[in-house]
Amino acid sequence: MTDATYGALAESVRRLIDATIRTEVGADTVAAVTAKLDAATAQLRAALMPGSFGQRCGDDGQPVASGNVVIGVRNPVAPPLTMHHEPDGSVWTEFILGAAYEGPVGHVHGGVCAMILDHVLGATAHQPGRPAATGTLTLRYERGTPLNRPLRAEARVDRTDGRKVLAIGQLGDVGGATVRAEGVFILPRPQ
Amino acid sequence: MTDATYGALAESVRRLIDATIRTEVGADTVAAVTAKLDAATAQLRAALMPGSFGQRCGDDGQPVASGNVVIGVRNPVAPPLTMHHEPDGSVWTEFILGAAYEGPVGHVHGGVCAMILDHVLGATAHQPGRPAATGTLTLRYERGTPLNRPLRAEARVDRTDGRKVLAIGQLGDVGGATVRAEGVFILPRPQ
Repeated sequence: MTDATYGALAESVRRLIDATIRTEVGADTVAAVTAKLDAATAQLRAALMPGSFGQRCGDDGQPVASGNVVIGVRNPVAPPLTMHHEPDGSVWTEFILGAAYEGPVGHVHGGVCAMILDHVLGATAHQPGRPAATGTLTLRYERGTPLNRPLRAEARVDRTDGRKVLAIGQLGDVGGATVRAEGVFILPRPQ
Repeated sequence: MTDATYGALAESVRRLIDATIRTEVGADTVAAVTAKLDAATAQLRAALMPGSFGQRCGDDGQPVASGNVVIGVRNPVAPPLTMHHEPDGSVWTEFILGAAYEGPVGHVHGGVCAMILDHVLGATAHQPGRPAATGTLTLRYERGTPLNRPLRAEARVDRTDGRKVLAIGQLGDVGGATVRAEGVFILPRPQ
């Protein structure tokens, strides 16, 4: 089965998450819905992979991380972000974050900004077949990042020193950067 | 209505999220479940607060952030973490993260580690009625953080300089720290 079937399920759960946070229906309806969801979960659990999704081969034979908390199309916690890789090695992604990612009132949690920048900086530091591990990550918060507004995150490699890659990037809205980041990523030793 | 009713709904959605990522049932079942979930979401959306949860008064009159992505009991994306505040101002929390928080295979996404440390360091930097804003946050990744294992995050104020608070902390498992963090938080000007 392709990711599309499971992806539609995850997208449905994302809408449910938003409604769960924002609903103001009464206790009886909430209890009835909860019972329905428990039944749905039992149906899905009839056949369950052990542990976590990990990395599996997609229909094209390429490894996919469909359970990834940032980009995984099967993970309802993931927005999910789509990474665009430019020929110069830079990476960008555009998205909107709703109620599920709130920290300060009306704003994206600073920790969610950190999570996204960790992923985007890591994506630009990666080399084919050599996934980079985060060494250090430094974030500078310029101002609040609004919920429910178009956002963009981007990163590029600033310089490379042996197996160390220094990546820089930012998250921002139409008014410019809200959070700036730099990270040192470590490439695995060549085989 | 108390948070308990909505909290039970959110807890049900958390189990559903895990099953959504890990299920191996066939396409027919997935499609049937998706339809049920869409119906449940429609029931919850019959009365919906605008925008996001924000901060509301709990039954005891204290402000609560039930929609918060890290600690919100109504937010299925939140683990949710429970913050313990010690008399000396330090903060700690213990928890287990499952498949929904995966990055590297079998491990917590480094960005999720960053998110949690941002929140825990911020919680220790806060002063009553004076929520601190993150200025900078620096993370040092020592090794991978395992999924489905008991984890602990803790933080304390190292020093204060006017409105600037330097907080330090770490995330780790039974084997010690996996990620260390330091952050500069800015307190609002006194009223």
